[in-house]
Amino acid sequence: MSGPSYVAVDWGTSSFRLWLMSAGGQVHGERRSDQGMTAAARTGFAGVLQSHLDELGVAADLPVVICGMAGARQGWVEAGYVDTPAHLSDILKGAVVVAGQPRDIRILPGIAQRDAAAPDVMRGEETQLLGALGLDPAHEADVCMPGTHSKWVRVRGGTVERFATFMTGELFSAVARDTILSHAVAGAEEAVDGDAFRAAVAEAYAAPAHSANLLFRVRSRQLLFGGSAQAARETISGTLIGVELAAGLAERERAVPVTLIASGRLQRLYQMALERLSIPLDVVDAEEAVRRGLAGAAAAIWNN
Amino acid sequence: MSGPSYVAVDWGTSSFRLWLMSAGGQVHGERRSDQGMTAAARTGFAGVLQSHLDELGVAADLPVVICGMAGARQGWVEAGYVDTPAHLSDILKGAVVVAGQPRDIRILPGIAQRDAAAPDVMRGEETQLLGALGLDPAHEADVCMPGTHSKWVRVRGGTVERFATFMTGELFSAVARDTILSHAVAGAEEAVDGDAFRAAVAEAYAAPAHSANLLFRVRSRQLLFGGSAQAARETISGTLIGVELAAGLAERERAVPVTLIASGRLQRLYQMALERLSIPLDVVDAEEAVRRGLAGAAAAIWNN
Repeated sequence: MSGPSYVAVDWGTSSFRLWLMSAGGQVHGERRSDQGMTAAARTGFAGVLQSHLDELGVAADLPVVICGMAGARQGWVEAGYVDTPAHLSDILKGAVVVAGQPRDIRILPGIAQRDAAAPDVMRGEETQLLGALGLDPAHEADVCMPGTHSKWVRVRGGTVERFATFMTGELFSAVARDTILSHAVAGAEEAVDGDAFRAAVAEAYAAPAHSANLLFRVRSRQLLFGGSAQAARETISGTLIGVELAAGLAERERAVPVTLIASGRLQRLYQMALERLSIPLDVVDAEEAVRRGLAGAAAAIWNN
Repeated sequence: MSGPSYVAVDWGTSSFRLWLMSAGGQVHGERRSDQGMTAAARTGFAGVLQSHLDELGVAADLPVVICGMAGARQGWVEAGYVDTPAHLSDILKGAVVVAGQPRDIRILPGIAQRDAAAPDVMRGEETQLLGALGLDPAHEADVCMPGTHSKWVRVRGGTVERFATFMTGELFSAVARDTILSHAVAGAEEAVDGDAFRAAVAEAYAAPAHSANLLFRVRSRQLLFGGSAQAARETISGTLIGVELAAGLAERERAVPVTLIASGRLQRLYQMALERLSIPLDVVDAEEAVRRGLAGAAAAIWNN
């Protein structure tokens, strides 16, 4: 087993994850914090990164490859976008060097869909796609990447042809926290009420136009028939995910399995939702995918 | 012209409106404030009402009829619900007397749809329906009542057969204020960008499942192509209203004109939206409707 040869960083809006990697892809050390772009923009990106490198005792000459919001306009250094149709290898070629640093630091670009009728952007997910699908030209995939801003992506022969972002996760937070439904979900436990969730997914999938009514029923149901805060929360979640699936699945050209790139609770929920709709799926862990994508970038840039 | 003979109050969640009325339906005085149920529940309903009666110098023996959230469980006195199918005259019979008051004060009940598959409630809108449609048994109407919680109601022969609540207005506030789109709409002026609104209505009406994507495009569009905060705000508004219309209009049994009960900005927006979709409509002013409904209740209760 070889020693550490580079550092991989997934720098999101609200999270920071760092891995100390060997050329062979082994993980030698790991750091995670909530110093995402928003926090780091205040305190300084270089300082945040260096503090984590110091904690792991990383050698001063080890290079760093970064993906995510650190490359946004409001981030560390703007890394721009590769335009669709975007071959995943173009991401590697578009890496931007952070000037004036003691070590070699590169930030990967995002992908932009400059279609006036369906404009869209991603930043970070392209690296997950690279890690999950590789550059295999034979690979065809319809990918679902749940999150605050879920992405549905069509990849053909290593090229991102088209994608759409759904602000499902953010809608869930806003609805559960900032509307009358906040009373309905108050005190909900972390455990998932699978029955309420699956029923809501099926109903919203079948009648997505009714979403704002399905949401209000969460309150009416509690008022007229009672019901737990947990069921209320999962009904909101299932409704919003069901609507997303109605759109995402309708965009597929053929009935190939959906590639679900997700971790933790979101992976469980989307898997449950897709299974409820009898949609075949392949599951890829999102964290493993981004790490593998960053490893692919390091190999391409430094021949590591 | 006869003198004042009763007081009519529309007491909502966040607003209070009072009219001093003659038996013939003339308005002798008017008060409005933001002392809705939420505020009055803290300071006391009786005191709020009396302070407005004092301002208008209302005689101590004049009766008061109230509709809206003052009759909710968290309100002044719970006025319960009439269940669907609910004849509008049943609302008049269900008025609840507020005990221990120096004058005769009655609160009208709401309407509940105790259908486990589609539970729903209204409180205040039933009085608008009464005022807009009357008790005419020949009247058939498909009614749209926009608001924080929009209602779509099917009325046949004076009976509320079925209705559905869409939390469109509250979703608009939550999305524009508490999500990433708050940056996109920052500084938007009050004037309406009709083109952006109409385009968003049509797009969301045609593809309601894509709502969470259509919303995110507001951000992507600004990022990639620029665009005003005003256009962004109207696109959010048009998207959410377009989704509501896709559901509300689909529920209609026949292509009769939609009865739109609304005032002010919401009346303008929904009228623009329905016209964009070539839906014939009859417009009734919401404030006039509720006042007429309260007048009908006063006539039935006190023969006024």
